[in-house]
Amino acid sequence: MSHNTFGHLFRVTTWGESHGPAIGGVVDGCPPGIRFKLSEIQAELDRRRPGTSRFVTQRREPDQVKVLSGVMTDEDGETLITTGTPISLIIENVDQRSKDYGEIAERYRPGHADFAYDRKYGIRDYRGGGRSSARETAIRVAAGALARKVVPGLVVRGALVAIGEKEINRDNWDWDFVNDPDNPFFTPDRESVELFAEYLDWIRKAGSSVGAVIEIVAEGVPAGLGAPLYGKLDQDIAGNLMSINAVKGVEIGEGFNAARLRGEENADEMRIGPDGEPVFLSNHAGGILGGISTGQPIVARFAVKPTSSILTPRKSIDRQGNEVEVVTKGRHDPCVGIRAVPIGEAMVACAIADHYLRHRGQTGRI
Amino acid sequence: MSHNTFGHLFRVTTWGESHGPAIGGVVDGCPPGIRFKLSEIQAELDRRRPGTSRFVTQRREPDQVKVLSGVMTDEDGETLITTGTPISLIIENVDQRSKDYGEIAERYRPGHADFAYDRKYGIRDYRGGGRSSARETAIRVAAGALARKVVPGLVVRGALVAIGEKEINRDNWDWDFVNDPDNPFFTPDRESVELFAEYLDWIRKAGSSVGAVIEIVAEGVPAGLGAPLYGKLDQDIAGNLMSINAVKGVEIGEGFNAARLRGEENADEMRIGPDGEPVFLSNHAGGILGGISTGQPIVARFAVKPTSSILTPRKSIDRQGNEVEVVTKGRHDPCVGIRAVPIGEAMVACAIADHYLRHRGQTGRI
Amino acid sequence: MSHNTFGHLFRVTTWGESHGPAIGGVVDGCPPGIRFKLSEIQAELDRRRPGTSRFVTQRREPDQVKVLSGVMTDEDGETLITTGTPISLIIENVDQRSKDYGEIAERYRPGHADFAYDRKYGIRDYRGGGRSSARETAIRVAAGALARKVVPGLVVRGALVAIGEKEINRDNWDWDFVNDPDNPFFTPDRESVELFAEYLDWIRKAGSSVGAVIEIVAEGVPAGLGAPLYGKLDQDIAGNLMSINAVKGVEIGEGFNAARLRGEENADEMRIGPDGEPVFLSNHAGGILGGISTGQPIVARFAVKPTSSILTPRKSIDRQGNEVEVVTKGRHDPCVGIRAVPIGEAMVACAIADHYLRHRGQTGRI
Amino acid sequence: MSHNTFGHLFRVTTWGESHGPAIGGVVDGCPPGIRFKLSEIQAELDRRRPGTSRFVTQRREPDQVKVLSGVMTDEDGETLITTGTPISLIIENVDQRSKDYGEIAERYRPGHADFAYDRKYGIRDYRGGGRSSARETAIRVAAGALARKVVPGLVVRGALVAIGEKEINRDNWDWDFVNDPDNPFFTPDRESVELFAEYLDWIRKAGSSVGAVIEIVAEGVPAGLGAPLYGKLDQDIAGNLMSINAVKGVEIGEGFNAARLRGEENADEMRIGPDGEPVFLSNHAGGILGGISTGQPIVARFAVKPTSSILTPRKSIDRQGNEVEVVTKGRHDPCVGIRAVPIGEAMVACAIADHYLRHRGQTGRI
Repeated sequence: MSHNTFGHLFRVTTWGESHGPAIGGVVDGCPPGIRFKLSEIQAELDRRRPGTSRFVTQRREPDQVKVLSGVMTDEDGETLITTGTPISLIIENVDQRSKDYGEIAERYRPGHADFAYDRKYGIRDYRGGGRSSARETAIRVAAGALARKVVPGLVVRGALVAIGEKEINRDNWDWDFVNDPDNPFFTPDRESVELFAEYLDWIRKAGSSVGAVIEIVAEGVPAGLGAPLYGKLDQDIAGNLMSINAVKGVEIGEGFNAARLRGEENADEMRIGPDGEPVFLSNHAGGILGGISTGQPIVARFAVKPTSSILTPRKSIDRQGNEVEVVTKGRHDPCVGIRAVPIGEAMVACAIADHYLRHRGQTGRI
Repeated sequence: MSHNTFGHLFRVTTWGESHGPAIGGVVDGCPPGIRFKLSEIQAELDRRRPGTSRFVTQRREPDQVKVLSGVMTDEDGETLITTGTPISLIIENVDQRSKDYGEIAERYRPGHADFAYDRKYGIRDYRGGGRSSARETAIRVAAGALARKVVPGLVVRGALVAIGEKEINRDNWDWDFVNDPDNPFFTPDRESVELFAEYLDWIRKAGSSVGAVIEIVAEGVPAGLGAPLYGKLDQDIAGNLMSINAVKGVEIGEGFNAARLRGEENADEMRIGPDGEPVFLSNHAGGILGGISTGQPIVARFAVKPTSSILTPRKSIDRQGNEVEVVTKGRHDPCVGIRAVPIGEAMVACAIADHYLRHRGQTGRI
Repeated sequence: MSHNTFGHLFRVTTWGESHGPAIGGVVDGCPPGIRFKLSEIQAELDRRRPGTSRFVTQRREPDQVKVLSGVMTDEDGETLITTGTPISLIIENVDQRSKDYGEIAERYRPGHADFAYDRKYGIRDYRGGGRSSARETAIRVAAGALARKVVPGLVVRGALVAIGEKEINRDNWDWDFVNDPDNPFFTPDRESVELFAEYLDWIRKAGSSVGAVIEIVAEGVPAGLGAPLYGKLDQDIAGNLMSINAVKGVEIGEGFNAARLRGEENADEMRIGPDGEPVFLSNHAGGILGGISTGQPIVARFAVKPTSSILTPRKSIDRQGNEVEVVTKGRHDPCVGIRAVPIGEAMVACAIADHYLRHRGQTGRI
Repeated sequence: MSHNTFGHLFRVTTWGESHGPAIGGVVDGCPPGIRFKLSEIQAELDRRRPGTSRFVTQRREPDQVKVLSGVMTDEDGETLITTGTPISLIIENVDQRSKDYGEIAERYRPGHADFAYDRKYGIRDYRGGGRSSARETAIRVAAGALARKVVPGLVVRGALVAIGEKEINRDNWDWDFVNDPDNPFFTPDRESVELFAEYLDWIRKAGSSVGAVIEIVAEGVPAGLGAPLYGKLDQDIAGNLMSINAVKGVEIGEGFNAARLRGEENADEMRIGPDGEPVFLSNHAGGILGGISTGQPIVARFAVKPTSSILTPRKSIDRQGNEVEVVTKGRHDPCVGIRAVPIGEAMVACAIADHYLRHRGQTGRI
């Protein structure tokens, strides 16, 4: 019931504005005895860090995360072990360019939340997007790195499947390529890189922006997570993904395509596998039936809108009710959706970790 | 943090199985002094009731809702007034056909949650779908009828925009037609009725089923509801809609199409209207920016998969690990998505009412 | 975050007014596979039922509880098995005497919540105490009967240790006597019965009332339940007990007496017992240290104020602001604290069951 | 539902161990537009700071709080204004003496949570008490300083009314003296200072410790806060106070004494005051009836046990199951209850602020 917290047993609370001294968060409810290295969290953060290619914002933030509580250091001096108490994460803001925000302070940028904030709170921290800055997502990624450790065997991976009007070729899907250093897009399709690069260069030069579609796949999720009604696993995955800035749509499994399928096409048949365990013959459901995981991979997709911070002048108004034109300069991503890949992974991992603990709590069956 | 509750200040808890003596729910946190007639709730329930056309399940349930607490009767003997205490709603199950569920008890129906339930709980009420029966949604609709009263001026309407591969023509959109007695589909397009009827008759005769896409529009939502991060209004709408059985995708505003638009196309420009109030020149955002309502109509869509209860035999397994074939007889909807229209309205209304109270609590600005 | 719900993983929501058609509640989060007989719940309810002796209210309510959902019946036709879905409990109101409540509707009874309700809600169901009627506690007792089953080996017992100025002699403590049919007071001291009876007869004849102190002891609580800060087991026990109507004080272990002890008197020393397990040499802590159970019996006490429904005329005002005198006729207990014994047991059992599930969820160590 | 969070709309989450780099917390849900100076929070913190007299621990911590988010600075360069986003508070740990904790790491100190922690988590940060260190309470006090600002006109004050076997004389009650620089005890009775000083010197020299009783009075609380059942204002105050380390009992109004009073003595009569407003003729209820504030001052008391960190050797065991003797050296308070006064004030202020927002949310009547 908090505006800045998600999860129930594995709970993440975040705080901080883009241009304050730091951003941070608290992970509460993490099981004790989980071992991790700070470098593992940092590696996840580095994946979403700005400034890594010409296709993302050039703001330079080292995004060095610190853990202030909730852990003890093992005898190797490096491995951290969770104690079961809240884990405080903090990242200092370094590159706060002392620019003049006077214009943004008064003018409502179209497609941004400026107007809505003012109507809600009557006061707004306009510097660098304030609370809705994409910087906040760094904490989600750090929390997700812990969440991955909560569920033994869990592997959560994401990939970008479309930028603007350009889509990947699914026949070329290669998970190994997604995090390849030569891949600035998290695309699983090596052949798409050149296509995306040309397209985005053109978009960037036009002072414009485009959206993207990201797909997250979680493997190693035990059957039984979730609940039939308002604790549906897909419900919480959908809510978590929709809580990412600029996300306008979420799908599980076949998603909107399911509406076009017939019952016998969509329902996943079952057989007994060679090891005597049940197997599904397809995965239209995306690993979740009736809100509960089936043991199949969980598949979710989400759509990110194009950023509204563009060079094209747009009609708007200011706080005083004057009609104005707005041009957003500053350092912004032509496609914010690219960096949303590790964020989406983190949000799915957090939802799964939470339901893993909830399922264990209610049923003791893990 | 309950598996059977949604909302924070306007909270709805439901209970009941398809074939138990009754289903019901508790609406807690409703403001005091709200006046309504039982017939108003009943009217909403009647819209989703089974047995109203040949395109929905032929199970006959009068679905008469009773209010057991939380209200006083006004002097007219008919108007109920909320007292601020929990409102208990109950609907007796009448038409529980005493059929033999032995087969379903042991066999996992493909596309259903049977397998997932057994893995989760180790025990399962298999009669009529148990807890995941669509009957549960009656309580959502009743709660939604109350939610509509919480926000002054709120109007939430829904319409079916696609069945299977068939879509409406948006140029024909007519809200008045949606609830027309001659309209068995909640379609806003009068010309689509014949198309849909023929298509569904064919599907039904083939022993098959199809999905649907529903669009919900909420007007009269004050600006300022929601919050920037994990209390996003669209996040809660998405979660609420995804909690409806068989829903596999949710969109806000442009939804997945937003990923294909460019920044200058997608961002809604603003001007000052003739009355001196801000106006938006378009509504790609679907009424929500940065998680907060802008005062524009809120637009959400969701995709419902085809029901898996079909006559076509499908491969599956049973509890003992034997491979079997499953044919679902029983009385089922060829397109469960049709009846999802009033349910979707109710879930959106509940999300808005909840955020209305939360916004008033934190800011006092309503 | 609900006004009518308590607990987190083992959650109880109640609804209903004294003079509506029924009262009820929903127990959500109960583990699946728990076996119980309706008669077991009924037996607990019968312990708190009004009308069982001349020392409690003469209102006659059979208080027959029904279970409407969340269970399946075992092959014996009698044993119910929880399925993990919400358990709906309902008790019909039978003996609603059609008296004239006009006077209470307008006049604020001193010591009652009438005035506070009107200030809060602006509307109030004055009939029979409305929502704050002691009848609501029947649902707590029913939920507590389930909670006892959640924790293997848990035994929660309560006893009345003082009525007004009269206290029991702890040297005579006999748990077996507490529920003896000849014991109308839940006192563990057989010799106190005559004392209490004489005292209460005198109070009753004087048209007055007195309070009571109740002690609850929970045995079989595993070590490790609770949490160091805001999930303290004693915090939730205290909150749960304070939520019982008319309770004005709560103690754990030595309670207020601990403030008078010295450190070396109060700290419980430890040794290794004959079976190699740790043993405590005393239990001043009441079984909880740092908010976490130690494995010792949990001991809590609470004070119930005298009911304000008395025959002695008292000064008050009415809704219109006139000064009036109030005499409460009706059927009321001279000592409401007596019937609070099974209620206190239930509230402690619910807190323990909830923390048992929470502990299992976070740590998996049960 | 978090182990490290309290409150619902005004929510406080804390993190940090005694000997980590820092402690901190997040206040979420604070209304926007609240103006305060950092020095106001610091002033509250200085009241509970260790090292201010010989009667409290000699650990020297400047306890300088920083605000990292959720505020903007007003034009005066000093006043902070809340923006409605989460307020992050942090206090660096400065005086972490690098002592050898090896002994405590292995031995369970009687009366401490060491044993319970190990049973719960299987791992324990033993340095300086870890998570249950009294240092954590600094964040409660800082949050309480904000909470006081949420409710217009709210004044929350506390006083120590007993140390060990010594009590104040209530006839001497003088609020102005409580925070007098010559008053090391927060006692409202000037004559008690010498008595308490002599008594505590004797206790300290004996290597022992004693408990205390603290009384909190909140004035300016509007009528209508709280709710009849599980949102009782006194329930949340009781829970909040019981969440303070070492608290073993809580009372509202007459508290345990109410059990000894008769109905006509305990019920507070009402009249119409000279200004036409209702007045109560007494306040046995402590300002709360039926869980809802009446507008009278809210009165709560709590009992703090003697610290178990004493020089007297006590029997215990170690992690390996050996019987040992424990003597706690280190820097500890002979009466931890003294510093609990500002903490109790803060916890009561937070409960009231939370219910103020909840009441406004549900009813809109503030």
